[in-house]
Amino acid sequence: MAATAEQINATIDAYVATFSAGDRSGYLALWAPDATVEDPVGSDVAVGADGIAAFWDGVRAMASEIELQRTGDARIVAGEAAWPMRAVTVIGDMKLSVEIIDVMSFDDEGQITSLRAFWDPANMVPYEG
Amino acid sequence: MAATAEQINATIDAYVATFSAGDRSGYLALWAPDATVEDPVGSDVAVGADGIAAFWDGVRAMASEIELQRTGDARIVAGEAAWPMRAVTVIGDMKLSVEIIDVMSFDDEGQITSLRAFWDPANMVPYEG
Repeated sequence: MAATAEQINATIDAYVATFSAGDRSGYLALWAPDATVEDPVGSDVAVGADGIAAFWDGVRAMASEIELQRTGDARIVAGEAAWPMRAVTVIGDMKLSVEIIDVMSFDDEGQITSLRAFWDPANMVPYEG
Repeated sequence: MAATAEQINATIDAYVATFSAGDRSGYLALWAPDATVEDPVGSDVAVGADGIAAFWDGVRAMASEIELQRTGDARIVAGEAAWPMRAVTVIGDMKLSVEIIDVMSFDDEGQITSLRAFWDPANMVPYEG
């Protein structure tokens, strides 16, 4: 049975919370074995626990702070979800934001099996928060 | 070369306009040969011009009017896009709305090569427009 909308929304909330808090182990616990990450779409795909840990470390090496903000309903159907958000990052002396839609699939327990993140680094703009 | 963001936004605008106007031939002209439609995600995939024409006819048989409203920026990268919208439909005596995110890929000319539509028919609600 596919994960329910409640399970999926809870996983997305945990994704946002752990990512924003810099909680590496909490973040890595959200993924199913052999999960894949393509973030942003068009970049190399990270695979499995080691690949996703390396993805996390790479992102964190670039930005000292990253806050994710959900900006609308997750559209959830058949064990998959697309959900809109904003990422606010501190890179050097600059605070930047970018609009993102994450597309995720989930296993029956609500763990993430894949992520494709739709955003273009060229669209990062100064944050007016 | 991948379609530009300008080409992709123009195709999305044309998608919204033709769909909302009931312009069948204009809608069908937006697709590349052998394009695929999974709408909603988890349903059977329609393939190619005949499949997409049958998809259109099936949707139109259910709802006498459908208006699509873009509700935020399309997130465009590497020849793909995820974009949020609302569909407002008239079914019998009822006017209903539902929040959708469409995920599309495009060929080099900006024609649509695939659509996966994230929405759950269970989330249709009376329209407060």
